[in-house]
Amino acid sequence: MNNNLSHKNWKNRLHDIIYEADTPIGKLFDVILLILIVLSIVFVMFESVKGLPIKTYTLLYYAEWIITIFFTFEYIARIISIKKPTSYIFSFYGVIDLLSTLPLYLSFFITGSSALLAVRALRLLRVFRILKISRYIGESNRLVKAIRDSRAKILVFLFAVLVLCIIMGTVMYIIEGEESGFKNIPISVYWCIVTLTTVGYGDIAPVTPLGQFLAAIIMIMGYGIIAVPTGIVSAEYTHHQSNKVHLNTQSCSHCSESEHRDNAKFCHKCGENLHNENE
Amino acid sequence: MNNNLSHKNWKNRLHDIIYEADTPIGKLFDVILLILIVLSIVFVMFESVKGLPIKTYTLLYYAEWIITIFFTFEYIARIISIKKPTSYIFSFYGVIDLLSTLPLYLSFFITGSSALLAVRALRLLRVFRILKISRYIGESNRLVKAIRDSRAKILVFLFAVLVLCIIMGTVMYIIEGEESGFKNIPISVYWCIVTLTTVGYGDIAPVTPLGQFLAAIIMIMGYGIIAVPTGIVSAEYTHHQSNKVHLNTQSCSHCSESEHRDNAKFCHKCGENLHNENE
Amino acid sequence: MNNNLSHKNWKNRLHDIIYEADTPIGKLFDVILLILIVLSIVFVMFESVKGLPIKTYTLLYYAEWIITIFFTFEYIARIISIKKPTSYIFSFYGVIDLLSTLPLYLSFFITGSSALLAVRALRLLRVFRILKISRYIGESNRLVKAIRDSRAKILVFLFAVLVLCIIMGTVMYIIEGEESGFKNIPISVYWCIVTLTTVGYGDIAPVTPLGQFLAAIIMIMGYGIIAVPTGIVSAEYTHHQSNKVHLNTQSCSHCSESEHRDNAKFCHKCGENLHNENE
Amino acid sequence: MNNNLSHKNWKNRLHDIIYEADTPIGKLFDVILLILIVLSIVFVMFESVKGLPIKTYTLLYYAEWIITIFFTFEYIARIISIKKPTSYIFSFYGVIDLLSTLPLYLSFFITGSSALLAVRALRLLRVFRILKISRYIGESNRLVKAIRDSRAKILVFLFAVLVLCIIMGTVMYIIEGEESGFKNIPISVYWCIVTLTTVGYGDIAPVTPLGQFLAAIIMIMGYGIIAVPTGIVSAEYTHHQSNKVHLNTQSCSHCSESEHRDNAKFCHKCGENLHNENE
Repeated sequence: MNNNLSHKNWKNRLHDIIYEADTPIGKLFDVILLILIVLSIVFVMFESVKGLPIKTYTLLYYAEWIITIFFTFEYIARIISIKKPTSYIFSFYGVIDLLSTLPLYLSFFITGSSALLAVRALRLLRVFRILKISRYIGESNRLVKAIRDSRAKILVFLFAVLVLCIIMGTVMYIIEGEESGFKNIPISVYWCIVTLTTVGYGDIAPVTPLGQFLAAIIMIMGYGIIAVPTGIVSAEYTHHQSNKVHLNTQSCSHCSESEHRDNAKFCHKCGENLHNENE
Repeated sequence: MNNNLSHKNWKNRLHDIIYEADTPIGKLFDVILLILIVLSIVFVMFESVKGLPIKTYTLLYYAEWIITIFFTFEYIARIISIKKPTSYIFSFYGVIDLLSTLPLYLSFFITGSSALLAVRALRLLRVFRILKISRYIGESNRLVKAIRDSRAKILVFLFAVLVLCIIMGTVMYIIEGEESGFKNIPISVYWCIVTLTTVGYGDIAPVTPLGQFLAAIIMIMGYGIIAVPTGIVSAEYTHHQSNKVHLNTQSCSHCSESEHRDNAKFCHKCGENLHNENE
Repeated sequence: MNNNLSHKNWKNRLHDIIYEADTPIGKLFDVILLILIVLSIVFVMFESVKGLPIKTYTLLYYAEWIITIFFTFEYIARIISIKKPTSYIFSFYGVIDLLSTLPLYLSFFITGSSALLAVRALRLLRVFRILKISRYIGESNRLVKAIRDSRAKILVFLFAVLVLCIIMGTVMYIIEGEESGFKNIPISVYWCIVTLTTVGYGDIAPVTPLGQFLAAIIMIMGYGIIAVPTGIVSAEYTHHQSNKVHLNTQSCSHCSESEHRDNAKFCHKCGENLHNENE
Repeated sequence: MNNNLSHKNWKNRLHDIIYEADTPIGKLFDVILLILIVLSIVFVMFESVKGLPIKTYTLLYYAEWIITIFFTFEYIARIISIKKPTSYIFSFYGVIDLLSTLPLYLSFFITGSSALLAVRALRLLRVFRILKISRYIGESNRLVKAIRDSRAKILVFLFAVLVLCIIMGTVMYIIEGEESGFKNIPISVYWCIVTLTTVGYGDIAPVTPLGQFLAAIIMIMGYGIIAVPTGIVSAEYTHHQSNKVHLNTQSCSHCSESEHRDNAKFCHKCGENLHNENE
């Protein structure tokens, strides 16, 4: 039992180091992990750049292996130190942590000249590790909540935009013909999305006067309807804030209803006098 | 009379299947219809793509006919099962449903080598069928209402933008001359819309220093005035919410205080029961 | 005196026709004027298009003269029918009305082969006549007021954006060198405005890795700071509306202060009971 | 002591001229300084333009020296006339004022053909002098405060956008291959930022159907998520205004009602004089 206790203590200490950032050693661990994540992303990026000296690629190869091994130990340590390993393994970050170590090991089992490139692609998934970084930003919760509340409305809006793009894209295909880049309907719809979202690459652009006239209308529409998602989020956000201002946290002594208007004298639910303690 | 009743029941059951989505079979019908609409749009899109094997075009041709026949039966069923057929036929979706079946049938009557292409264009109108999808999204109503309320203001704004574009386009035509893409005033106005809406294709771009200076001013103006439609929609939306969600117009029978929360049972000012007419 | 009165009546009737749109004939006049303004703009635009048949240019020439003569008569009628002609002549629309008739007449006095082109440019100023259209849109007043209130803040913001563009443009000029389109600082500043306002022509684009890195930062900054003018207008607009909701127009019987909160019982300025007429 | 006093007076008068703009001579000084700052920026810009006559470059060279000497005297005068010179020297504008005079003097000490170009780069830092202009705009403070309050949230948002761009950029690199401009991951991430922020140069554009499909999704995402920073700033700004303008936290001594308008003298609920401590 004593051994079990010391075992528990050892696991608890590891848990504190890995999962929490309040102790100095826990903070140090998180900072090192953060630096390694950024480094690993930079390495993956640089590996894709052509024309560097071969020595650099060799260095990047070794650096990648060292970081991957560290991440593997970290992954195992996370599983050991937690009480319910499954709650970590099947969590969002558990899956990402696994996906960011696995590809390099898989490159041993899947051999062959053509398969190598596919493995390289798998290794790129390690970029998902960057999502880990969001773990260190605690203040983003409120932002995420605000976005989630207006998600449904924004999706409906984006869907409406997509429908509009399909219709306008088809019309542009008929107007512009196939000479001026509008080769088929999917390409025309792609162009319409590029235009309506005000991206405007210019790889495809209308050349006929009628096409340019319609394009101008699509642009002005895109300029006008960008106001819609913005209005939704603004209202949602303002609403959240104004809730705080209008209602207070005073709770009724009779029915414990807690959301009363600031100037309420009686509970709006049961009619109890809210200020009877003053009498 | 019994026959008439069973006939009514048969029509009612068809009506429930087609127009409502509460029963399992009604839901199934809607899901199948939705899938067919998406498929038909994908088929129309792919048919416009050049360079596919001929077998694919034949398959697309048959698939298109099968879907069109299904849509025709659906259209007839909708007319039969509703009590007032005219209310459906002349509704927004009634017209779209007709327009999305008609073009393929018309290709029989309008013959000739050159006319075939025109019919192909008519068939493209079937894309309007996608508008049917919005029928399945019930939550978009509130969004549509918010946009409708600020529609007048946004139109005035877009009109002002258009006037600005005509003036600035003319000035750019004078400044840039005809060497650098600004061939005539309509093209210059088109360029100005492309720039002000921050689309920026780059097919036409100013080359003279003065032209670039003016273009920079147009861009910064476009960047600044995009705030206007956004501000309008935001304010409209916030206004709606703060009225709708928080307070209603019910007034207390005792003290005539009128701003109560929607779920209030008792007056927050004097404690009077707000629903005493039910007692 | 009788003659003077009939003279006055004649002037008054002309005034009603030209300046007001309540009588049927006044409405007709405004609609005809509106159509002529649009036509005249379309004619000026088409005249700049190259490659049309010569007959069209002749027609456009005569049409332009007819419209200009009508506008001249209208301008004189406006001066005659108003009591204080100076109040019209030096008003915004008075100046625009004059500027939209003058250029064509000036083409007689300023002769010479080189001057002809300059006159053509003067004639283009007739586009300003389109501003007249805004006279017919009464509902735009509130929008204009909202923009005017946030004008100062938006100008400060746009000035800050311009300063940022000058600094970033200079830095980009140093980084990119003179090979990749960043030929001098003004061009670099122009590019920076094109990028920050998310227009993005693509005629000038960074090619060095460091330049592309900085360009990416400028883009993300532009994406983030577009929120500022939008936030200003939204807040200004919401503020205007919420003023209406929170305060009522009830005025105090004692001090005639009129802006009270909706649930106020006593005047917040002098302490008078606001509801003493009920007692 | 009399001499000391006159010395003080002399310094005080200089201080009033330089640091304040209330006296006519102080205003004149500020206007001249403002003009010289703008001129100096214009000169630096024009010096980078190629192809001007040599005489112009000589003129620009002398003009630059004259302005730099004036700025040097101004810098010294600012240090002399202030009581605590260190509070100026280490302030934001103190550092900028120094940086905008130093580069030209340094061009004497750092000699050599290659170093000359580096000095030229240092001289470009003089552009920072433009920041001085913001000193003359007093009204920007409130705008700056509003931005600062929502800074943290916008940074979190921009960081999330960056993470998204890294992931999407990598996926695009795998999809598009290396033929179509997506040469390596950093370039792909750069492209993704260009697209998501709706800049859209068009120097790199997807050519494969799958790449264009993903690009369309990125664009629509960019179009939708631009609403987030806008919503944040709008809400922050609205919140500020509705608090500041309407209500204060003063509470009534009689009924302890606390939400009074800023200029309220009497409690709007019970009519008690809010400022009875003055009586």
